[in-house]
Amino acid sequence: MKKITSIICLLVLLTACSKPKITKLIKVSNLEELNAAIKDCKAGDEIVLANGVWKDVEIKFSGNGTEENPIILKAETAGEVFIEGVSSLELSGNHLEVSGLFFRNGHSPKTNVIAFRTSAKEVANHSKVTNCVILDFNNLERDQDNIWVQFYGKQNELSNCYIAGKTNGGPTVRVDLKGNQSIRNYHNIINNHFGPRPRKGGARGETIQLGSSFTSMSPSNTTIANNLFEECNGEVEIISSKTNFNIIKNNVFYKSEGSVVTRHGNYVTVDGNYFIGDGVNDQYGGIRIINTGHWITNNLFYKIKGKNFRSPIAIMNGIPKSPLNRYNQVTDVVVAYNTFIDSDSPWQFGVGTNISQADVLPKSEIRSARPLRTEVVNNVIYNSVGDANPIIEHDKADGVTFASNIIDNNGVDFSKRDGLTSKKLTLTPIGSDISAPVSGFSDVEVYNGFDFETITEDVLGNSRDKSNQVGAILDVENIKLDILNKANYGADWYSNEVEIRDPKTHSVSNASELVAKLKDAENGDILELNAEVFKISESLIIDKTITIQSKGSTEIVYEGAANTPAFSLTPYGKITVKNIKLIGNTSNYAFASLKENMSNHFGLEVIDSEISNFNYALRVYKQAFSEQITFKNTTISDCENGIELSEETKDRGDYNTEYLTIDNCTFNNVKQNVVDYYRGGYDESTIGGNLLITNSTFTNSGSEEKNQRLLNHNGIVNVNINNNTFKNNKVKFVSILWGAKNNVESNNTLINSGQIKTEENLVMTLMY
Amino acid sequence: MKKITSIICLLVLLTACSKPKITKLIKVSNLEELNAAIKDCKAGDEIVLANGVWKDVEIKFSGNGTEENPIILKAETAGEVFIEGVSSLELSGNHLEVSGLFFRNGHSPKTNVIAFRTSAKEVANHSKVTNCVILDFNNLERDQDNIWVQFYGKQNELSNCYIAGKTNGGPTVRVDLKGNQSIRNYHNIINNHFGPRPRKGGARGETIQLGSSFTSMSPSNTTIANNLFEECNGEVEIISSKTNFNIIKNNVFYKSEGSVVTRHGNYVTVDGNYFIGDGVNDQYGGIRIINTGHWITNNLFYKIKGKNFRSPIAIMNGIPKSPLNRYNQVTDVVVAYNTFIDSDSPWQFGVGTNISQADVLPKSEIRSARPLRTEVVNNVIYNSVGDANPIIEHDKADGVTFASNIIDNNGVDFSKRDGLTSKKLTLTPIGSDISAPVSGFSDVEVYNGFDFETITEDVLGNSRDKSNQVGAILDVENIKLDILNKANYGADWYSNEVEIRDPKTHSVSNASELVAKLKDAENGDILELNAEVFKISESLIIDKTITIQSKGSTEIVYEGAANTPAFSLTPYGKITVKNIKLIGNTSNYAFASLKENMSNHFGLEVIDSEISNFNYALRVYKQAFSEQITFKNTTISDCENGIELSEETKDRGDYNTEYLTIDNCTFNNVKQNVVDYYRGGYDESTIGGNLLITNSTFTNSGSEEKNQRLLNHNGIVNVNINNNTFKNNKVKFVSILWGAKNNVESNNTLINSGQIKTEENLVMTLMY
Repeated sequence: MKKITSIICLLVLLTACSKPKITKLIKVSNLEELNAAIKDCKAGDEIVLANGVWKDVEIKFSGNGTEENPIILKAETAGEVFIEGVSSLELSGNHLEVSGLFFRNGHSPKTNVIAFRTSAKEVANHSKVTNCVILDFNNLERDQDNIWVQFYGKQNELSNCYIAGKTNGGPTVRVDLKGNQSIRNYHNIINNHFGPRPRKGGARGETIQLGSSFTSMSPSNTTIANNLFEECNGEVEIISSKTNFNIIKNNVFYKSEGSVVTRHGNYVTVDGNYFIGDGVNDQYGGIRIINTGHWITNNLFYKIKGKNFRSPIAIMNGIPKSPLNRYNQVTDVVVAYNTFIDSDSPWQFGVGTNISQADVLPKSEIRSARPLRTEVVNNVIYNSVGDANPIIEHDKADGVTFASNIIDNNGVDFSKRDGLTSKKLTLTPIGSDISAPVSGFSDVEVYNGFDFETITEDVLGNSRDKSNQVGAILDVENIKLDILNKANYGADWYSNEVEIRDPKTHSVSNASELVAKLKDAENGDILELNAEVFKISESLIIDKTITIQSKGSTEIVYEGAANTPAFSLTPYGKITVKNIKLIGNTSNYAFASLKENMSNHFGLEVIDSEISNFNYALRVYKQAFSEQITFKNTTISDCENGIELSEETKDRGDYNTEYLTIDNCTFNNVKQNVVDYYRGGYDESTIGGNLLITNSTFTNSGSEEKNQRLLNHNGIVNVNINNNTFKNNKVKFVSILWGAKNNVESNNTLINSGQIKTEENLVMTLMY
Repeated sequence: MKKITSIICLLVLLTACSKPKITKLIKVSNLEELNAAIKDCKAGDEIVLANGVWKDVEIKFSGNGTEENPIILKAETAGEVFIEGVSSLELSGNHLEVSGLFFRNGHSPKTNVIAFRTSAKEVANHSKVTNCVILDFNNLERDQDNIWVQFYGKQNELSNCYIAGKTNGGPTVRVDLKGNQSIRNYHNIINNHFGPRPRKGGARGETIQLGSSFTSMSPSNTTIANNLFEECNGEVEIISSKTNFNIIKNNVFYKSEGSVVTRHGNYVTVDGNYFIGDGVNDQYGGIRIINTGHWITNNLFYKIKGKNFRSPIAIMNGIPKSPLNRYNQVTDVVVAYNTFIDSDSPWQFGVGTNISQADVLPKSEIRSARPLRTEVVNNVIYNSVGDANPIIEHDKADGVTFASNIIDNNGVDFSKRDGLTSKKLTLTPIGSDISAPVSGFSDVEVYNGFDFETITEDVLGNSRDKSNQVGAILDVENIKLDILNKANYGADWYSNEVEIRDPKTHSVSNASELVAKLKDAENGDILELNAEVFKISESLIIDKTITIQSKGSTEIVYEGAANTPAFSLTPYGKITVKNIKLIGNTSNYAFASLKENMSNHFGLEVIDSEISNFNYALRVYKQAFSEQITFKNTTISDCENGIELSEETKDRGDYNTEYLTIDNCTFNNVKQNVVDYYRGGYDESTIGGNLLITNSTFTNSGSEEKNQRLLNHNGIVNVNINNNTFKNNKVKFVSILWGAKNNVESNNTLINSGQIKTEENLVMTLMY
């Protein structure tokens, strides 16, 4: 073993503390030195990782520090130590601290990137990971699930970190409670910036999960506070609380397509959080409530347009005597002192009721148990555009007490209910681009429920002691919210704000130039094709955001081998093709993803183009995922297969694209898989994918389709087929819609093309 | 309204307290005065109930005291205020205190006798009921369930009370958790004496129940400490914990036929309790464990012979993903520092496994999930008679860690297991009639699990800090347990110890004397019949413990009306008939219970007698219950019906007698219901009744039995049919035994009497 390069002993007399603090600095430059330093480390030691790239390192940091003298593992310069390749970090022992590391360009060989344990029996306690970044540290395949930060033990902390870009399955952060070593853990997840997590396509994309259904009876006592969640779009649950006594406080959920969900477990406090939408995107959610004893207080909902499962307050129906992993009845929940501004139908009850599906679901799946002993009180609703249904009862809210709630619905009628009173409110600016009703309603008597004296503060931390009033915000002077200032969250050396760069347009005159310039182009650039024909014999690799376009009717003739694509869609590859005629040799493909290692998402947009003579217009393999695939003003003709997105056949709820949009297109002589888009597995809380087919014409297609359907979209939750013409397609059905979900069609013309049928219920595999 | 009779104001300056305490004494003599006093009461008031009988009073005690100045409702002299008739007590408000009352000779008009609330919304907090007695305050019918003390609200106390004799359904004491007003209640149930609760016959006979399956996820934080449970035989669960975070500490379970059961909910502490049996009765149990996170520490088990469900430590199998009201898997349980003395097979795992019944039970009833992450460590076993199976695995204990356990098995071999080591131990006397291993094993290294540093004391409260060792008792000098001294528990003015009185024998010469002397006799007396024939035309009322016997062959000829009994078995009536010939008129009965209002148990023993020419030898109606019914050396002949105990047809698990014993008897020409004993309803944890038929002869009987069975005992759990002769009975079956339960037969002779069949599984109604 190499000798440790430098040891510096320091004797630091801390003036604020009576005990002298002894610190030993040990600088290490490689894994061997690091392991040696860890092996010898004692309370007070600081192990310093030299700046630079640390590749393929599996760090096991074990030691026993003390409260006064923790053992520290830190970057020489915060942000200049890069953990790359196949790497991981595990901690065990007591009072350990890790800081300043940057995990990037790699993935973990284990089931987690950072774990607060080194073996099943050796956990960390009183330890923290702080001021670190984990960015795009994804496994190679989407369904190789893992967790980026996994908590075990007790009293651990993840603070001031920036964590973003997880595309593979598994929550970004999970608290594990299996074992006495990890209950009543009082972990803190604080001051972090959870940056964009792209839509995963299906379940298992939570940003934070606290326990699992198997430990739903366990007391976790985890605090998630003062974090910024920005575009955390992984799935319908941003935070999935599955244990007892968690506290979710003062977080900002900004343009995040999901909700805070008390999925299992009880007695969760969701207090003083900000849910900020844009008034348009109806994927941004609020708080979805299941189980017993939660207190939802002092939260501010601003322009949240989520519906049903994603509504600002979604109170679910339970399953009577529910199995452990399903839906317990909501009881003893308090929803008090919240403010809802321009958020549609904010209170929804009996969400998830499925009594009508009793024929196709087992009895143990029927959610018929309505909320009991639940109080919705002291809340304020303000709608600048009136909302006819501030309350939606999917099932009766007869177990809910409403009291001392006020609403300004700007003159629009709504169905009246005791405990929700109209009142004219005025808005006060409380920050940049945000106003809220704050004053003028102190005359509304507050409802005092059991233990309400414990609600001592408003969302801003002002005391309710003296001049209490309904709503999340007390009437104090000069409120200036600064909740979206990213400098307040995450690592102090990292920002995800990037300067917007003007795209560069590269003129391309021949095929070899196309290959070369595509390779050299930067993210966002445009390749302008300036010849009539480009003959290409090998796949063009798309690994960045790029636009390929022409002014006139440029042809790209792909002469490559059978079953290879003209455009190979690889991780991060997002291509827009505009005004191009793409011509194949009947055996090869126009577009295809990689067959494996699609460690990050691709994207595809085809506009004003023609695709002909291919085996597949688009073939997306299992594990590949795109947030959006769009065809617009485009013709697909004389192809064996059309748009193929049906390989996620494991029936775990996954699918290949969140949105597939086909607008004003023509399909002619596409023999099979004309549109084939699949999602399998029964999961009531998966809300994708989305298929939109409008203003298009399908002729002479589908003749080879074995199931005799022209458009296959089995299991896709949102389907919209409008204003299309189907003519001379030899199929039995143009489409079979799923009536119980959001599948609709209108204004289509069918000539000699079978029919469109709606089946109310679809028999699907249960996922759990 | 009458004027309050006397108001005395006192100004008491408490020397121990800096605040002056103002007390107003208000003495009341009737309900009107009491109600007026309650209406006006203020902090510091003491309402004094005049001595005497308070009949038919429904007391609602509401008020707001303070910690320093509670409002007190008390007996003029503790124990001299009798609450009788149709009466109840309800409390609501804060800091109330009730003391000195004696509930007897009556029952409650409500669903509880004492309730810590006056309406669904008005509960009591910081209030207590102390130094009171509730005795035999039973509803008129056994299945009119109620609760004697029902907790609502928070921080209430039941202390120093004596409570005994509940025969009707429903737990004696229950903590209710429905609603935010009653969670995290920190109630205290302390220093009480729970006196004998007779066997109820079926479920719903718990002494204390903490919550219900519907609130099993709720934090209760109730403490049950320092109580004496004496002969609490109501059902298999003495304490049924159904919520989280309860503490069951330093209680004495003395000759109680049941167990402490963590039926639902998690994280219960069962610490420092004494389970005292007699080395014979195998109904005395220990601790039965279901669910997660319980800590079973420092308990002492002495001569506990319970098996399977009632074994000292019974760890159950769970149902995978169990429904809320069934059996969750056992996980993360700690069983540490307990001592087991002369207690058979004290550790049983996989209790309740029923994988073999998969054919007759729904999947959601199959208990196949074995315990996980469970530690059985630092325990001591001493067997003066060696036990071949200290560990029984009904299903594999592969998820259990054994470590640092020692056993002295007095030389008897047992199947070895890591973590359970043989060691020679010696017994030290630690109290009257009790010895335990205390010293000589300090060399055994204790196992230190997660959080084991929180186990700071032994069963006696001695610190484990300095000289820790395995087992419940540390090695300190002069241990003198005084745990069975009844003066340490219950009301200070009441004792259930009665002087034993020698029974008096009354000589009876004719029928009218028999009626008169039966009426006048005292409990336990003997009537000696000294004539040859007693002709009786009206039922003899049995309402006490009495023996009726003769020296020779005395006849009692019952000439009463059809369908009336010679002996009418009424509440508390326990009769022994010895050496008597009982003769009917073919239309009337020998023995029968009342048809209704059997508010307490009866008993029947018939020895050396003959019963003939009756419609029924014994007819027991629905709701009537006897702990024992015995026929010995007795002939039953020429009767239309024999022994009829089959009217509990609601299938809620109830039955009419705990034990039916027929030994050395003869049945001849009994046409139907020869023996008809029924229990209905599937409930894996009901362990009765008990049918023993031995050395008897059945001839020419059962000819009119519609189901063609001679002995009917459908649903009875323990059946023993040995050494009998069955001859010329026109039936298809003598008996159909339930193979999965404890139903056995041996050495029977069947001549022209059909057969005995065993059916492994019985299809029964599910009870829940």
